[in-house]
Amino acid sequence: MSLNQTVLRTDPVQPAPAQDRYHAVRAQSLLLLSPLSAEDAQAQSMPFASPSKWHLAHTTWFFETFVLAQAIPNYQWLKPHYQVLFNSYYNSVGPQHPRPRRGLITRPTLDEVIEYRQRVDEAMTLLFDQTGPGSELSQVIDIGINHEQQHQELMLTDLKHLLSFNPLYPAYRDDLECSSTTHQHLNWCHFPGGLKTIGADEKQFCFDNETPRHQVQLIPFAIADRPVTNAEFMEFIDDGGYRNATLWLSDGWDQVRQQHWEAPLYWRYLDGQWMQFTLSGLQSIDSHAPVCHISFYEAQAYATWAGARLPLEAEWEVAAADVPVDGNFVHCRRLHPGGELTGSSNSQLYRMFGDVWEWTGSPYTAYPGYRPTAGALGEYNGKFMCNQLVLRGGSCVSPADHLRASYRNFFQPELRWQFSGVRLARDV
Amino acid sequence: MSLNQTVLRTDPVQPAPAQDRYHAVRAQSLLLLSPLSAEDAQAQSMPFASPSKWHLAHTTWFFETFVLAQAIPNYQWLKPHYQVLFNSYYNSVGPQHPRPRRGLITRPTLDEVIEYRQRVDEAMTLLFDQTGPGSELSQVIDIGINHEQQHQELMLTDLKHLLSFNPLYPAYRDDLECSSTTHQHLNWCHFPGGLKTIGADEKQFCFDNETPRHQVQLIPFAIADRPVTNAEFMEFIDDGGYRNATLWLSDGWDQVRQQHWEAPLYWRYLDGQWMQFTLSGLQSIDSHAPVCHISFYEAQAYATWAGARLPLEAEWEVAAADVPVDGNFVHCRRLHPGGELTGSSNSQLYRMFGDVWEWTGSPYTAYPGYRPTAGALGEYNGKFMCNQLVLRGGSCVSPADHLRASYRNFFQPELRWQFSGVRLARDV
Amino acid sequence: MSLNQTVLRTDPVQPAPAQDRYHAVRAQSLLLLSPLSAEDAQAQSMPFASPSKWHLAHTTWFFETFVLAQAIPNYQWLKPHYQVLFNSYYNSVGPQHPRPRRGLITRPTLDEVIEYRQRVDEAMTLLFDQTGPGSELSQVIDIGINHEQQHQELMLTDLKHLLSFNPLYPAYRDDLECSSTTHQHLNWCHFPGGLKTIGADEKQFCFDNETPRHQVQLIPFAIADRPVTNAEFMEFIDDGGYRNATLWLSDGWDQVRQQHWEAPLYWRYLDGQWMQFTLSGLQSIDSHAPVCHISFYEAQAYATWAGARLPLEAEWEVAAADVPVDGNFVHCRRLHPGGELTGSSNSQLYRMFGDVWEWTGSPYTAYPGYRPTAGALGEYNGKFMCNQLVLRGGSCVSPADHLRASYRNFFQPELRWQFSGVRLARDV
Amino acid sequence: MSLNQTVLRTDPVQPAPAQDRYHAVRAQSLLLLSPLSAEDAQAQSMPFASPSKWHLAHTTWFFETFVLAQAIPNYQWLKPHYQVLFNSYYNSVGPQHPRPRRGLITRPTLDEVIEYRQRVDEAMTLLFDQTGPGSELSQVIDIGINHEQQHQELMLTDLKHLLSFNPLYPAYRDDLECSSTTHQHLNWCHFPGGLKTIGADEKQFCFDNETPRHQVQLIPFAIADRPVTNAEFMEFIDDGGYRNATLWLSDGWDQVRQQHWEAPLYWRYLDGQWMQFTLSGLQSIDSHAPVCHISFYEAQAYATWAGARLPLEAEWEVAAADVPVDGNFVHCRRLHPGGELTGSSNSQLYRMFGDVWEWTGSPYTAYPGYRPTAGALGEYNGKFMCNQLVLRGGSCVSPADHLRASYRNFFQPELRWQFSGVRLARDV
Repeated sequence: MSLNQTVLRTDPVQPAPAQDRYHAVRAQSLLLLSPLSAEDAQAQSMPFASPSKWHLAHTTWFFETFVLAQAIPNYQWLKPHYQVLFNSYYNSVGPQHPRPRRGLITRPTLDEVIEYRQRVDEAMTLLFDQTGPGSELSQVIDIGINHEQQHQELMLTDLKHLLSFNPLYPAYRDDLECSSTTHQHLNWCHFPGGLKTIGADEKQFCFDNETPRHQVQLIPFAIADRPVTNAEFMEFIDDGGYRNATLWLSDGWDQVRQQHWEAPLYWRYLDGQWMQFTLSGLQSIDSHAPVCHISFYEAQAYATWAGARLPLEAEWEVAAADVPVDGNFVHCRRLHPGGELTGSSNSQLYRMFGDVWEWTGSPYTAYPGYRPTAGALGEYNGKFMCNQLVLRGGSCVSPADHLRASYRNFFQPELRWQFSGVRLARDV
Repeated sequence: MSLNQTVLRTDPVQPAPAQDRYHAVRAQSLLLLSPLSAEDAQAQSMPFASPSKWHLAHTTWFFETFVLAQAIPNYQWLKPHYQVLFNSYYNSVGPQHPRPRRGLITRPTLDEVIEYRQRVDEAMTLLFDQTGPGSELSQVIDIGINHEQQHQELMLTDLKHLLSFNPLYPAYRDDLECSSTTHQHLNWCHFPGGLKTIGADEKQFCFDNETPRHQVQLIPFAIADRPVTNAEFMEFIDDGGYRNATLWLSDGWDQVRQQHWEAPLYWRYLDGQWMQFTLSGLQSIDSHAPVCHISFYEAQAYATWAGARLPLEAEWEVAAADVPVDGNFVHCRRLHPGGELTGSSNSQLYRMFGDVWEWTGSPYTAYPGYRPTAGALGEYNGKFMCNQLVLRGGSCVSPADHLRASYRNFFQPELRWQFSGVRLARDV
Repeated sequence: MSLNQTVLRTDPVQPAPAQDRYHAVRAQSLLLLSPLSAEDAQAQSMPFASPSKWHLAHTTWFFETFVLAQAIPNYQWLKPHYQVLFNSYYNSVGPQHPRPRRGLITRPTLDEVIEYRQRVDEAMTLLFDQTGPGSELSQVIDIGINHEQQHQELMLTDLKHLLSFNPLYPAYRDDLECSSTTHQHLNWCHFPGGLKTIGADEKQFCFDNETPRHQVQLIPFAIADRPVTNAEFMEFIDDGGYRNATLWLSDGWDQVRQQHWEAPLYWRYLDGQWMQFTLSGLQSIDSHAPVCHISFYEAQAYATWAGARLPLEAEWEVAAADVPVDGNFVHCRRLHPGGELTGSSNSQLYRMFGDVWEWTGSPYTAYPGYRPTAGALGEYNGKFMCNQLVLRGGSCVSPADHLRASYRNFFQPELRWQFSGVRLARDV
Repeated sequence: MSLNQTVLRTDPVQPAPAQDRYHAVRAQSLLLLSPLSAEDAQAQSMPFASPSKWHLAHTTWFFETFVLAQAIPNYQWLKPHYQVLFNSYYNSVGPQHPRPRRGLITRPTLDEVIEYRQRVDEAMTLLFDQTGPGSELSQVIDIGINHEQQHQELMLTDLKHLLSFNPLYPAYRDDLECSSTTHQHLNWCHFPGGLKTIGADEKQFCFDNETPRHQVQLIPFAIADRPVTNAEFMEFIDDGGYRNATLWLSDGWDQVRQQHWEAPLYWRYLDGQWMQFTLSGLQSIDSHAPVCHISFYEAQAYATWAGARLPLEAEWEVAAADVPVDGNFVHCRRLHPGGELTGSSNSQLYRMFGDVWEWTGSPYTAYPGYRPTAGALGEYNGKFMCNQLVLRGGSCVSPADHLRASYRNFFQPELRWQFSGVRLARDV
């Protein structure tokens, strides 16, 4: 069974009906689970990561809590204690099982969680078929579908982190695409400054943090036509980048020393050469593929070393405005950056979408006039607007129909387990 | 299938042949596993505890490493990487997978570990049948059998700790014996002082830390005829025992405040009364059963509060010399202290064996003239002779044929997840 | 001797000669030291804070390293090891004594540090008198003067933190001004949106992080005419503000629980009422004075509770553009927010400068086109542009002639030992 | 002024009157302080260590609390808050200022503490002169005198630790004796086993933990005639002792790796050779002087490497029974182990007293029949009888008249800042 078998590609002009999209995304989650044992789905490798089982239950809890319990009068919870176990961080909804202990919940088992999914799917089907969800709940369902897509990406990201602790370097699955990437010269694309408009236009689905669409004043800038590659990053390493304090932000340098960083997260120096752990197991470094699993601090230090800087998120979005949302996404069955170039010759920008999330130099904050979604879903994005940086463009484990130019991802600057890389920018 | 179905009770006069004992203990491990899912067997709740799967693999690694690989020329490891994954702490053998990350090893799966067990059992059977292990390896096999019994106890102890994090209070199995314990007045048994002999006589199997048998000079003492009960311990709580610094050792008082101790480990104050988590799930407190899951510090503070002290290990052993090794062990299928009284009217000492491990006031150190076992197995006991206290007598999750009066268990004074209780002593 | 005796007030039109300003600021540092014992000047209360002795030595090291050693050929260090002991964070200059251990350096003594100051002052006098520092070094001297002013503020801030651990609530000095503040109704000042220019114009002294002057696009906004008061903040407390997760950023809520916050840093609940520790010792809460020693998280939670938000730093700067830099600064000898209103009736904005540093909602990042100062002084500001928020306006312990509308202070969002408060803003 | 100027040497047959001993020990404390600045006396280098100022105040608090306040009706505390500030750990007396924050108490100043000492001394003089303390208080005064001697040793020990953080390697004083030690061949002294009597006979002053005198059964043993030397310990280092896990206790090996131990605490590898920090500053290693500042773990690992073991405390005491209490103590003005041999040719045991505290293999526990001193002074020793090991014999910073063969010192096995070394023993 192929990873993209059940993917329902969205036609942006005429999207599929909600019910079809719901079932497609639900099936895709189970498809991602299929190579895993109950053990694989149980373990939690760090507080930031969650077991696959938990992701599957939590995304289901989301529909039960925010859709079914709202739509159905006197709703009876399928499993009342799941309200605590699988609530991630919604204080408005109620208490939560401690995040670092998600891996200790061995009961319900994986089979019981899958059964829970089925029962919620059945109830959702009834809701779709009989009454229809109504326009307000339809919006929540859209959030729920996109929410589950985010957790699909996290399932793979967290699983990679978990498997990386196994000294056997096990593969997530053995039939992934493996391709060597060809060299591409780096070119700079120039953009004039001035008052630009960014943010989602709200005609299609978007998250609240992409709104409101607003104006920002930019100075003229140039942006690289592709992300930094492994070969380029290795030059930084060989030039002593990890030992040169003056290249780093102060907090970044503290991390370098405390964490003993000397290469991207999954690189291993074995028998005299660098290798990398991937979802296909241990592999040699693909020199011309985008470097991946670096922190914001490493992205920033590399940019300083290269005489450049990180793009602002507004610059990135302006540059991406006309680039088609196409690239190395999860359905490419590679689950690793690299392979053929993507992008359009029109825009002359490559790999803007897919491959690696690109760190920007922009702290994650509210857009001017930002209003969180009303109710508990207002906790979805707004309360994280501190101590995180914006990343753009999606990665090789993102669902293709999940992304757009205005999409804002965000993580703490020291984190490296995401499929994160870097594209350079500079003043003109 | 009952918990004691495959237990081969040892006749101390004429013990069963090694091969029979080997297979009985191996079968018993799988029997203990039988109520568990792959998920239950995967998770690790703290660095001191291990997943059931790891216990099953490690005890097998023990036989492969210390028996098969010694007995068979040019031995080929069944799974070479298991040498690292399932080595607990034998530096002489080689490097070890980090202990706090045992729960992250999702591969091998539980099924693969069970298959590993079968292959080692087959090779052991060949060894028994064809050549015989020889006298030196026979001793190692005896250690391996006793070692696996220790891990059987730890499987239950660690599993209880894991399940305790689940807010559903799940039971290990639903068919355990549950009995209410009757009140028994506490009497003191008096013993004269003088030069006494303790330690194993080495006619039967024993661990190196029980040797050599040697003389100790004791002053006259009295020892309680039974352990402290839940009802008695609750008086201590109600009298402010956990808030009165002067009852505690200095390090103990630090723990009380840092860990916010106010009752034994698995007690929960719910709806106005104390309950306790057991392997049968959440249960009311059995007033006259021995108090369990207390640290050395709590045992010592209770004794001080009660105007008594903890027995020395030599006192305990002298008192236990004539007590039959009988009591509430794992085969009683209770997996919790309490129930009918055990012991003999001759000795007038009850519950000396089984029910709860009894903290003594004796730090775990070498006996005079102690020599660790030669080779890697010298790491079994000797290197832990610091910062731990001796416990005596076994518990309700110990295998009955594993214990004897000279048996020394040992744990750090702050640990509470063992089935540990306290019996009082005093000077005369 | 009064705190402002040696303060040389700067005439912005015709500033005093550098030599005069140098000696004035150097004298002021010793004046701030004068009430302290050698013991007071030695102790370090946390890694973020430094001993007064260290501040006095470090500011002197700055002139020796960046001025004397540059200006004088074959310069001989007065005390070569001071290059390590009193280097704060300049990796370009060389290694540094670990920050958390500044309080362990008992030698040199305070007297020896004062002697070191004198010798550097003498050398600086020679430089001023004989050759003149040249235009490039003049700029560095200006930085050094402003740098010492920053450390004068930190001396008081860090000393307050140190004294707060003393259960006697000792006062820094007993002759400080104490005045009760009168109530002032809160009014909103409205500003139109559009393209605004912020940043320093570089005609006067400024730090590199205030440059370049550039345009930002703002939406229309209103800003409160004065900071939030203690009385207002107490309403927030009484309304359960510290117990209501939905008011807080996610990281803020984590802090509330981990640090057990329930009031601003130096508030103490004694005998049924809130008191506060000040540089005058323990005092009652001055109801209508600005609330002080709150974190960014508390500022943000308060604003959310009040139906408002924090101002952006650009909004603050636009609002402050025409406000005179006047207020409750260190020379007012109060060393605590409150007292008479400051500001101009023209601008209708009060207490914009002095009293409390005002948290903005703006992460501390580089302005568009920012270039750090060349050389080691490029480490002064730029490398901290991550994980910190901008504060504006100065406080009651700031030197008056140190500030301007474009001045950017920055601290981590969880820190509370600065004299930090909050002014509300809102969309219009 | 010499370090031993005011030392009143005790004639064991006819000890000096209590008043004389009191004033002698009080004067000696100030003598030890004399080379220190107020800064030196203020700083605290770790939670286990205390500022000199605190030691001076605490020993005075001891006399005020346990003598003056008991002897004088309606006693008025000289400084009521000192009851909290300078209470070390007597929960029976009342609350205590947190130990890790002793270095933050800058007020009272050192001068104020010295004045406090004078006022207590005056009151004590009145008590001695007028009424006499009575027999019960006389015992407490004896404890207080011995208590102050213990803190005199700690003052030097803690000060050395503090100064060691200063990269200038400052000396405590410049006029200490420095002598090179001559090589002495190691001989073994043999002792027969059997029932031996140890513990204090209570005719002279002793601490409660030395009582009651009691019998222990020993096996025959041999003990080295002198401690292990630096040269011998360097062989252990050169042989990879710090990299060989099998030599170490399990907890010891954890420390080696976590703390990155590769030599005794104050050894520094500089310019290709080992140096050591001493109270005379940085010095070369004196090859044949006793190795010092090693943990129990290092002592034990060395003994294992050397094919020996640590002596039991009973063995040490039996061996020391006839050795005169003479040696390299504080009055020798060396403050470092080594120099001429001490001991008697009769006993053929050298350096048993003074030079270095000798780790024994005995955990610190109660002797059989032990009863703590009644009242608050029962907290003096008894509550520490867990997680510590006994050391014997005193060191080069101990007062000579403080020690005896039955004296028990005790510290945690990982601690190295005491003047601790090792003497080997073995079974015969």
